[in-house]
Amino acid sequence: MNEAELVRIDRHVKQWLHASREFILNQMQATLNVSQKTSRRDLVTNVDKENEKLLINKIRTFSPDSQILGEEGFGDQIKNTKGWVWVVDPIDGTMNFVKQRDHFATMIALYIDGESVLGYIYDIMHDDLYSGGPSLGVFKNDQPLPKPENTALHDGLICVSGPLVLHQKLNLPAVVEQSAGLRNYGSAGIEIIHLLTGKIVSYISYLKPWDFGAGKILAESLGLAVTTVDGRPLDMLSSDFVMVATVKAQQDILPIIGSNV
Amino acid sequence: MNEAELVRIDRHVKQWLHASREFILNQMQATLNVSQKTSRRDLVTNVDKENEKLLINKIRTFSPDSQILGEEGFGDQIKNTKGWVWVVDPIDGTMNFVKQRDHFATMIALYIDGESVLGYIYDIMHDDLYSGGPSLGVFKNDQPLPKPENTALHDGLICVSGPLVLHQKLNLPAVVEQSAGLRNYGSAGIEIIHLLTGKIVSYISYLKPWDFGAGKILAESLGLAVTTVDGRPLDMLSSDFVMVATVKAQQDILPIIGSNV
Repeated sequence: MNEAELVRIDRHVKQWLHASREFILNQMQATLNVSQKTSRRDLVTNVDKENEKLLINKIRTFSPDSQILGEEGFGDQIKNTKGWVWVVDPIDGTMNFVKQRDHFATMIALYIDGESVLGYIYDIMHDDLYSGGPSLGVFKNDQPLPKPENTALHDGLICVSGPLVLHQKLNLPAVVEQSAGLRNYGSAGIEIIHLLTGKIVSYISYLKPWDFGAGKILAESLGLAVTTVDGRPLDMLSSDFVMVATVKAQQDILPIIGSNV
Repeated sequence: MNEAELVRIDRHVKQWLHASREFILNQMQATLNVSQKTSRRDLVTNVDKENEKLLINKIRTFSPDSQILGEEGFGDQIKNTKGWVWVVDPIDGTMNFVKQRDHFATMIALYIDGESVLGYIYDIMHDDLYSGGPSLGVFKNDQPLPKPENTALHDGLICVSGPLVLHQKLNLPAVVEQSAGLRNYGSAGIEIIHLLTGKIVSYISYLKPWDFGAGKILAESLGLAVTTVDGRPLDMLSSDFVMVATVKAQQDILPIIGSNV
């Protein structure tokens, strides 16, 4: 795809995301309608659902022949990654959204024939939009974002999801012990923003495709590694234990996790 | 102390803190001089030290007969809490300051004869100043802050420091299991801000007096409980396992920690 076409799509996606943010902020004035999906830790609200419909409606109008993978199920049943595939997470970090009214993100990704094209992570409450891809480069609020330093595990902070730390999975206590310290923000999007900006050196969590779709494109475009915790490529249609990391931190972490997957 | 005198002191402290912020932001333009205190996880920089000197100098000029307890040791050797005692943490969350250039706080507290008078937590990078005390009430950037809801552990997020989670101390995995989820921001000041604003229901960590001096005053003024993890009052001259929590969350957590201290 040529750059003019990328820029045109990019302009549209940003318009959708700004509309999304207005919608979310408006809805936050009213009482949320919260329900559980698979467990009391896995929440969905009316705003997740309505915002996904809003975004999918924009995508369908713009690009009727695309496939859409949406967290809340208003997209398509996707069996393959052929053609244009949009990945939509209307509110990433719904628990934070419900309990904190902060620290959550709206995310969109575009893949074509399985290849990364454009990714978007929008920190709604701070009004910070991270956008771009392998061709356009990566931007924070339309300013180019420099590549984060290739910092080793020993010299950087690491984010690990709560359940993985609590249950001491994947030999992760040993990984964290090697790092400069543990952090946990409770949203894949917010955590990946901390990687893009060099504030942490790795993020490890069990993630679904809409959790990592946009982050993978942005992180890889800035020279970060995005794989499973045992170093395999991610399958865009499957959930897995995912590691986003600087190249050095990835090399430090892989042997510690080793066969503990 | 009458309100006019409190307001006068409050105005001065805010001036010092704004000067501190200017100083810190300026220093962040240059290379930091980082060294270890007790371990590689316990850092201090030239900015911590110089900012403590700046604040202590302001306090000495304003109130020459006060005792001052400062993290970096430029205050007094304090043996008792008689008279005016200022507690100064020039940069709380030094690891975040060094590794993230974000998520750290400058904190000041004033106790008189061991009684809470005024507390200040300044989130430097977001320019959010939390201030006040039992008489004045609590403010965020000079706007009154409402009391956070008295939410139970089951319905709220909890922050626990990395080492306590990793080493499964104090039966904390069971505490976190009861909550809505684990978060970890890496700075007592930032974590207590999340309590003041109702974004988490408890924060548990091993803390030194300068880590909790300001937070204790602000949190108690908003109806939150601030004690040791086994429910004893804090000693302003000692380090301890500290729990800041809503009253309901404290009642939920105390029996789970029980005799595991």
